[in-house]
Amino acid sequence: MIELGENRYGKSCVRVMRVERESEPHSVQEWNVEVWLRGDFRSCFEDGDNSRILPTDTMKNTVYYLARLSKAEHIEGFATELVTYLLENNLQVEEAGASIAATQWGPLSDGRQMHGSAFIQARNAPDTATVTRRRGEAASVCGGFRDLAILKTANSAFAGFIKDKLTTLQETHDRLLGTVAAGEWKYSLEGVDYKAARHRIMDSLLSTFATHQSQSVQQTLYAMGKAALEAETGIAEIHLSMPNKHCNLVDLSPFGLDNPNRIFVPTDEPHGSIEACVRRAN
Amino acid sequence: MIELGENRYGKSCVRVMRVERESEPHSVQEWNVEVWLRGDFRSCFEDGDNSRILPTDTMKNTVYYLARLSKAEHIEGFATELVTYLLENNLQVEEAGASIAATQWGPLSDGRQMHGSAFIQARNAPDTATVTRRRGEAASVCGGFRDLAILKTANSAFAGFIKDKLTTLQETHDRLLGTVAAGEWKYSLEGVDYKAARHRIMDSLLSTFATHQSQSVQQTLYAMGKAALEAETGIAEIHLSMPNKHCNLVDLSPFGLDNPNRIFVPTDEPHGSIEACVRRAN
Amino acid sequence: MIELGENRYGKSCVRVMRVERESEPHSVQEWNVEVWLRGDFRSCFEDGDNSRILPTDTMKNTVYYLARLSKAEHIEGFATELVTYLLENNLQVEEAGASIAATQWGPLSDGRQMHGSAFIQARNAPDTATVTRRRGEAASVCGGFRDLAILKTANSAFAGFIKDKLTTLQETHDRLLGTVAAGEWKYSLEGVDYKAARHRIMDSLLSTFATHQSQSVQQTLYAMGKAALEAETGIAEIHLSMPNKHCNLVDLSPFGLDNPNRIFVPTDEPHGSIEACVRRAN
Amino acid sequence: MIELGENRYGKSCVRVMRVERESEPHSVQEWNVEVWLRGDFRSCFEDGDNSRILPTDTMKNTVYYLARLSKAEHIEGFATELVTYLLENNLQVEEAGASIAATQWGPLSDGRQMHGSAFIQARNAPDTATVTRRRGEAASVCGGFRDLAILKTANSAFAGFIKDKLTTLQETHDRLLGTVAAGEWKYSLEGVDYKAARHRIMDSLLSTFATHQSQSVQQTLYAMGKAALEAETGIAEIHLSMPNKHCNLVDLSPFGLDNPNRIFVPTDEPHGSIEACVRRAN
Repeated sequence: MIELGENRYGKSCVRVMRVERESEPHSVQEWNVEVWLRGDFRSCFEDGDNSRILPTDTMKNTVYYLARLSKAEHIEGFATELVTYLLENNLQVEEAGASIAATQWGPLSDGRQMHGSAFIQARNAPDTATVTRRRGEAASVCGGFRDLAILKTANSAFAGFIKDKLTTLQETHDRLLGTVAAGEWKYSLEGVDYKAARHRIMDSLLSTFATHQSQSVQQTLYAMGKAALEAETGIAEIHLSMPNKHCNLVDLSPFGLDNPNRIFVPTDEPHGSIEACVRRAN
Repeated sequence: MIELGENRYGKSCVRVMRVERESEPHSVQEWNVEVWLRGDFRSCFEDGDNSRILPTDTMKNTVYYLARLSKAEHIEGFATELVTYLLENNLQVEEAGASIAATQWGPLSDGRQMHGSAFIQARNAPDTATVTRRRGEAASVCGGFRDLAILKTANSAFAGFIKDKLTTLQETHDRLLGTVAAGEWKYSLEGVDYKAARHRIMDSLLSTFATHQSQSVQQTLYAMGKAALEAETGIAEIHLSMPNKHCNLVDLSPFGLDNPNRIFVPTDEPHGSIEACVRRAN
Repeated sequence: MIELGENRYGKSCVRVMRVERESEPHSVQEWNVEVWLRGDFRSCFEDGDNSRILPTDTMKNTVYYLARLSKAEHIEGFATELVTYLLENNLQVEEAGASIAATQWGPLSDGRQMHGSAFIQARNAPDTATVTRRRGEAASVCGGFRDLAILKTANSAFAGFIKDKLTTLQETHDRLLGTVAAGEWKYSLEGVDYKAARHRIMDSLLSTFATHQSQSVQQTLYAMGKAALEAETGIAEIHLSMPNKHCNLVDLSPFGLDNPNRIFVPTDEPHGSIEACVRRAN
Repeated sequence: MIELGENRYGKSCVRVMRVERESEPHSVQEWNVEVWLRGDFRSCFEDGDNSRILPTDTMKNTVYYLARLSKAEHIEGFATELVTYLLENNLQVEEAGASIAATQWGPLSDGRQMHGSAFIQARNAPDTATVTRRRGEAASVCGGFRDLAILKTANSAFAGFIKDKLTTLQETHDRLLGTVAAGEWKYSLEGVDYKAARHRIMDSLLSTFATHQSQSVQQTLYAMGKAALEAETGIAEIHLSMPNKHCNLVDLSPFGLDNPNRIFVPTDEPHGSIEACVRRAN
């Protein structure tokens, strides 16, 4: 006997830009939205009966429709509105989810003045939010970010590790530490000020990254997660992914030159992959 | 109180190419390997104590070392050797995992002859394998593929779905159905002939995709998964992801032309996202 | 005094899929089209006068419109129709150009049979064509390809090169030679059978790559270009780009293993860049 | 008779990071370098004689070597040193070229303070420089940028264009104008203060983009180029590429909603392609 297991369907890469031009400066929000549904869709999968299927095209329209109506000022709020709308209007659905990545548009300044109707894309690291909601339950709200390229030029060591017959890495007490970080935290309360919380979390993550006396990526990651949990009491846990984008010191001795941590080759592959969840203990 | 939760670390994008040139035709295997460990690494994360840490650089070396020694002829086998080696040689580790994507190199033929020492990259859809092993347990072995672009030009409908106030999609009984599929199946037995199994699974997936009278992507996905389970008794379940890469019929009527399913615009965003697991019922 | 120099404008990434379903097997052509115009557009650039501007949106519509009407069976022909249409219908235009990349769809076969209405994307190396036409002149027609990943496991050396104080590379008489080739050839005649010509050119390129006793990428590139010119008299010149995607032999000696050209690390960066035009001498 | 035409070879994607840590704040320069040579390399291409070939591996080493020795503080200067070194040390070479893209690292600030040894990647738009030098001539030095995503939410129209039977675009006097701009300017003088010049050029480009009353992308591009030439007398010409990344207004009328320029769908394909050179007239 063969049966349907876990399944979900939805629409991905629904791009939407909300522009407010009622006063200067204008505001721009550019979102890339994914939305999905779970429920008992066996008759569709097994029998080709689409009578319980809300088309993904309609989900896309729902994003546009709510974008027009919504007063949400942050992606956590808009994602919550989306999943709530889908649950309320689709009784066949058991769980709805939405994930949003927000492009970072900032005001365009030319050094002399800020322009009220021109924008420049700031760093390539979108804010993210993921909200899921099961029927009859509160929404589960996560905030996050990804693609955040950061680099330490001091206070990073890696030594005291296991040596075996396949070890070729040298210990170091002074290396570059670069990563392209991603993170996601889960709110434990409703009614959080998501914008202020995000600000506190990002501040504590970056400040800790900058100042930590790092013995390993793992230790720095943990310190960052701990700092975020201490800075924002409204979150229960934070998951961080910090690939170690190795910067290799170039051996210039064949050319008669020294290289006292001056010239490195940044690399993308292979790279270390370090990820962990840091959470409040029960 | 704050504590460490789920965590893992390892090395990603370890690229390796194995060449056999003892007889013609030569053979080439190009793999992109990810390897990771789980265990009690709290002292590293919390205290900066690296004494239980096998460096990711050594994991990379392990891939090269085993690639030289291994007789494995498929990625499932090599990934199993990798995790077994890591577990046996690192008693501090509770679980090891390895994931491999294999580039598709085929013999280069120029129409007249096949050349024994020249290769051409066939389709851009790597075979994949993921193996995890917990200490004291058998390895969990999965095979799979990704990035498989396939297209049906007949036998695809989508109708009978829910209509509501946000519906704009028209019903259709004859559309193009294109996807870039990914799949992963889990072996239920040890000692499977992975190569033959993969062949049977891929054959049944593709044959079903080609011939299915599709009422929806969901139904076709389910039929494909069912066919794979029927074709290969050594697998317990298969997860398929089939994004609906919409081909939109162009409205040529403003130019005085009809368009009887001849001219389409293929699109990447937004796209439908359909995924499900199909499995043997207990 | 400041003035407008060289300029062009047009539409890029116009995707179109042409489907023929009148008989089995069906046929599918998926094209990514770029189209552009040159001419005296100073009044637009300098004065904001759009009266000589054909909108890029209309150029996009032109692609769809002609795709419906055209009988062209290859991209060279369709690109020629496009530029001719644009010139004939836009007297303000001095030169029109079109560039097309064709996705490689092949019939989906499941090992037992070929299916007439299902397709699978073959290698990730599109055929390309670029046609430009100046008013009152014949079209200049180029064919080509890109992203063609090929690899030699024998008959490749690199030695006898310049050694200086910055040299660290060792000479080798037996290395892997991998590239992701691109090529473009220019037709010298009208009325060429583009399909047959492309076949002869690709055959000669691949056959030469496979069998050449290579002393360098440069020498192999030249031999390939020469073979193509000899195989197809209808082309005047061919430009080839063959980045040297280095496969580095892994040093396994720290682990007590030899490595007689068995285990390599394929790399993308840095890579050699070798490109040249090979042509008929006047 | 078949002969070698235009050719060049070199090394691409040579990544190098220069770190200065002698005082706080530290400084970081991350460059992606391409370097190439032209000359009479016929004996290599035609005969497999490598005696005039400086290996691309040595060119890579040259980048590392000079990165250690150089006092250059900007990419224009370092690229000039590179091509000069290659010409002086390789008499068989007629022309050397170097192109550099600089990753934008900025100091990491956590809102309270700036950290002297931590950095964050600012916008994803690298500064670029390309320098070529022929033996016996001065270097030709270009500065530039690419991937600069900018957006206007006011002062952009497109009307008065040609209408024909394939026109479906509506005229608009108020649209969003978004682009991902690239630019390259050529210095006409030696001894320019490249850093100050870049600053003046970018300021004038961005300021003009922000404030221009745009009748078309073309007109805005021209105004930007003109402003740059007026702001920096040390450049002779500037080439700008400004793809029109269309933001399409969503039709919300099927859902009973208006959409007074509030909700848009940003798109990547198809996109307009507008590029032009603006220069000083002789």
